[in-house]
Amino acid sequence: MFGSEKEITDFIQKTKFDGKGLVTAVVQDATSKALLMVAYMNDEALRRTLTSGKMTYWSRSRQQYWLKGETSGSFQFVKEVYADCDNDALLFKVDQQGSGACHTGQYTCFFNKVDGTIRDTSVEK
Amino acid sequence: MFGSEKEITDFIQKTKFDGKGLVTAVVQDATSKALLMVAYMNDEALRRTLTSGKMTYWSRSRQQYWLKGETSGSFQFVKEVYADCDNDALLFKVDQQGSGACHTGQYTCFFNKVDGTIRDTSVEK
Repeated sequence: MFGSEKEITDFIQKTKFDGKGLVTAVVQDATSKALLMVAYMNDEALRRTLTSGKMTYWSRSRQQYWLKGETSGSFQFVKEVYADCDNDALLFKVDQQGSGACHTGQYTCFFNKVDGTIRDTSVEK
Repeated sequence: MFGSEKEITDFIQKTKFDGKGLVTAVVQDATSKALLMVAYMNDEALRRTLTSGKMTYWSRSRQQYWLKGETSGSFQFVKEVYADCDNDALLFKVDQQGSGACHTGQYTCFFNKVDGTIRDTSVEK
């Protein structure tokens, strides 16, 4: 639990979800500080994340809740949670379990460099 | 310049802009690794960023290009650029100038903790 029931409810209420009911969730490794992934949450996914302590998203492609790690074992345990200055983006600092955040097997989803090379993210674990 | 003209064009072409022609830009301090802000770019803002080396967004509220630092002096000089695994979010590691990224005067926009307290971001500079 991240704060009391009331604090969680207040946090969700002040979050500005977009026209599709979603907010951008930015996920950072709490230890290495590497940026792991960007995904989306609706209000219920945010509530599940804050009450369970495990990152839970809304999958736009599958149109369903997505408890990260449920099938892969690569859970993300929440350490700290922040909203930005206008409450339309959230930052989650997490303890990344397993091989990493990316479905490709990379530690972080951000491995495609602008010049076309691939960044080796295995060193950041 | 981040890569050759061709590499920049290729990078923009493979970026998946949403229905409004925008992509999410996540901005991280290249040195402290703090998450500074989340903003949006259309293809031309991305091109300007990659060719000038200064973070340039599309302001959704003002509906105009937004060269970060143009009025405040708090420019963000681009150090590294990555796309994520499905090319619909971009990570920019930057050298943050001036007082910080946030219009409130904070170093990072992510200072509102879930429990209602305010994080002191001045220590992260």
